[in-house]
Amino acid sequence: MVQGAVESYLEELSDLVSFPSISSNPKYKEDVRKCSNFLQEKFADLGAKTEIVETSGHPLVVSDISNYDDALTLAFYGHYDVQPIASPEDWKTDPFTLVEDNGKLYGRGTSDDKGNLLTAVKAAEIALEEDLRLNFQFIIEGEEESGSPNFESGLKKSRDMLDPDVVIVADGGWVSKDIPSIEYGLRGLLYMHWNLRTAGKNAHSGAVGGPARNPLLELFDVVCKCLDSDTGEIKIPEIYDDVKEASSEELEHWIGTKFSVEEFKESYQLEKLRFEDKAKVLKSLWARPTFEVHGCVGGYMERDSKMTLLPSDGQLHVSMRLVPDQDPKMVFEKIRNFVGDKNPDIEVKSVSHVEPYLTDFNSPMVKAAAESLEETFEKPAARIRSGGSIGAVPIMNRVFGGGDIIIMSFGLPEHGAHGPNEYFTKEMAKGGMEAYLNFFESLEGEK
Amino acid sequence: MVQGAVESYLEELSDLVSFPSISSNPKYKEDVRKCSNFLQEKFADLGAKTEIVETSGHPLVVSDISNYDDALTLAFYGHYDVQPIASPEDWKTDPFTLVEDNGKLYGRGTSDDKGNLLTAVKAAEIALEEDLRLNFQFIIEGEEESGSPNFESGLKKSRDMLDPDVVIVADGGWVSKDIPSIEYGLRGLLYMHWNLRTAGKNAHSGAVGGPARNPLLELFDVVCKCLDSDTGEIKIPEIYDDVKEASSEELEHWIGTKFSVEEFKESYQLEKLRFEDKAKVLKSLWARPTFEVHGCVGGYMERDSKMTLLPSDGQLHVSMRLVPDQDPKMVFEKIRNFVGDKNPDIEVKSVSHVEPYLTDFNSPMVKAAAESLEETFEKPAARIRSGGSIGAVPIMNRVFGGGDIIIMSFGLPEHGAHGPNEYFTKEMAKGGMEAYLNFFESLEGEK
Repeated sequence: MVQGAVESYLEELSDLVSFPSISSNPKYKEDVRKCSNFLQEKFADLGAKTEIVETSGHPLVVSDISNYDDALTLAFYGHYDVQPIASPEDWKTDPFTLVEDNGKLYGRGTSDDKGNLLTAVKAAEIALEEDLRLNFQFIIEGEEESGSPNFESGLKKSRDMLDPDVVIVADGGWVSKDIPSIEYGLRGLLYMHWNLRTAGKNAHSGAVGGPARNPLLELFDVVCKCLDSDTGEIKIPEIYDDVKEASSEELEHWIGTKFSVEEFKESYQLEKLRFEDKAKVLKSLWARPTFEVHGCVGGYMERDSKMTLLPSDGQLHVSMRLVPDQDPKMVFEKIRNFVGDKNPDIEVKSVSHVEPYLTDFNSPMVKAAAESLEETFEKPAARIRSGGSIGAVPIMNRVFGGGDIIIMSFGLPEHGAHGPNEYFTKEMAKGGMEAYLNFFESLEGEK
Repeated sequence: MVQGAVESYLEELSDLVSFPSISSNPKYKEDVRKCSNFLQEKFADLGAKTEIVETSGHPLVVSDISNYDDALTLAFYGHYDVQPIASPEDWKTDPFTLVEDNGKLYGRGTSDDKGNLLTAVKAAEIALEEDLRLNFQFIIEGEEESGSPNFESGLKKSRDMLDPDVVIVADGGWVSKDIPSIEYGLRGLLYMHWNLRTAGKNAHSGAVGGPARNPLLELFDVVCKCLDSDTGEIKIPEIYDDVKEASSEELEHWIGTKFSVEEFKESYQLEKLRFEDKAKVLKSLWARPTFEVHGCVGGYMERDSKMTLLPSDGQLHVSMRLVPDQDPKMVFEKIRNFVGDKNPDIEVKSVSHVEPYLTDFNSPMVKAAAESLEETFEKPAARIRSGGSIGAVPIMNRVFGGGDIIIMSFGLPEHGAHGPNEYFTKEMAKGGMEAYLNFFESLEGEK
């Protein structure tokens, strides 16, 4: 069954990739719309009730194929929008033409998320042909790469059609190519701008330097008070108060996986780490908050040149990845108070936030998914958390009022999601369909 | 005499301003050359021996009018190149057309330095007509706004023509419009790039954040170890070792001037200062070194937007203003050792440096110049230092082997040198000529 589906998978992926559905650029609004229509037709062909849910942004495509009153309902979450093409010159092929080369499927969105998403859709298609006693629903958004700003309102609008027992997020992937992975937790995110203005205009540093304040130096100073940059330990009082420690069982499982610190460094081209102990690396990736500065605006921002003006203002792009049970709003208040105490002239603005998510490491659903991966790929599967954030997950958790949400998907670090020459592989698409089918079979008659 | 000279001053300034002699932009190479030719003709008209000294950059114009073997020789230093037009939209008039409006003379270079320079040239012209027993020399460079990279070699080439007893720098100006000022000292400058790379490429902060190092945070950390940003106090060991303290006499004189901390803040639009005590402000402006960061390159540098990638590398633009007797090269070594000790992965590169300069506060030349200002403007004159740096001054000091160099010029903070709508005033041009003439008269027969 799966072998045959791979052929039509390639055709449909080729169609999907051909839409430049870049959600963050208004220029592509019509292409995003066309891509949503294409999906709706695809689901209609499968016999689904399907709807384009309008939002103030790009539409959500929701579909329901519920043939059994007494069967489990699985909902797949995915997105049909893609990242922009930041450096066209780095692409060896046209980003919006699917090119197959030696099993690799090149094109924007092949890995994130069109190829992953289509793997799930095709698996459901096979399950329907095989009359598996399961119901399928699909929640496909068009603004994931733009931070899912309208996902919650869209989801609430389509609440009548959707009532899943379990949600499978078909976005993301494995920790490395040898470790089939199920993600049962995600970090949250708090994104801030820290602004400080000390003068009406830039000034000659010779004419004012000494008595004049330097906004960049003052911002750096507060950052240093927030963080030990060597260890990554955050020094803001009470910031770890709500952090739920990873259980010893989880930690042991993580350490038992084939995760390799050396491979991790290699795949991200990291020269050395803050620490290289495997347990510490995994814990700090998945179960500890981070504090990062992503950039500093102000003064002179051109590389290798020279300017002696004293900047009149500065802005830091600051983020924190959050872990269960940290509440982004409470964390923000702690930071704002701390920064305000150290330097009352700094304005701390919250730009956006995503809640962390965690389901039970030992949930039967998580275990069943892991077993399906092991069976399919004949390798030990890892139950891990993700260090990243998916805004839709805590939203679905809230709107659906509980139930498991697991991230079961097939992207690999080397696929280069968001970068140039993004690809997915035929092998992962085929394996992914098989794994989903194994998972479906294990769930038949579960209700 | 002076009143008549003001008319021809305006004509000649109009000609000088019409050359877009922007030294930093190769596009204007021919215009810079034309401006140097214009000056050479002007000096030839005054009966000078005059020469265009070729350098690997723009030429130096040197001139000598030595009619008396037994008279003092005064050399004027100035520059005929100008800053680029960074924001043409902010100019109310064409930057390269002199526009007079209510005594204000608008145009690029009117204040810095064409208007100042021409004030000196016209004063010498009057002195020659009056047969004052003085010799005049002129050293006019075309690369001051580009950091005077070829000034030393050009000056050495023209050493045979030049043998001044005193050098008057006709560039810079007063501390404020009510304080006629002579500058007898300058701070030096050390400009550095601090580079740190921790990864081969930017990485997803969710995927690597925790164990991964953040180059911006590590750079900030070392900056915080170098400096107390609240007080401006530099914490690098032995960094103040060679600082020659200002004498109590100097300090008392500075405090006795009409320098106002409030006016200082206002003219540079500084909201508040690190400290507001007048003595401390003046000492830290003129007699203490500074440590500044002018910008940070790396990661996301667009204002008010959002990116969660972890930067793979960072660069800080760092400068120090230095004071007598700090040696830029020795200071650089101290910084490099200190930074290397705190974070050996940071590369500290010296980009350029200028030595500090100081002549004797009580030198007869300094006192005579101050007295000429008092006599002309009927206000107490201040003997001050400059917080800025003029690369040519320590070079002339070295090449001429001592002798006084004083900065006697007529720019005001509000003239907006380097900015849009730069202007000079007829009043300062006229007063400047009178003050120079008074100074000349006080020096007749001094040798």
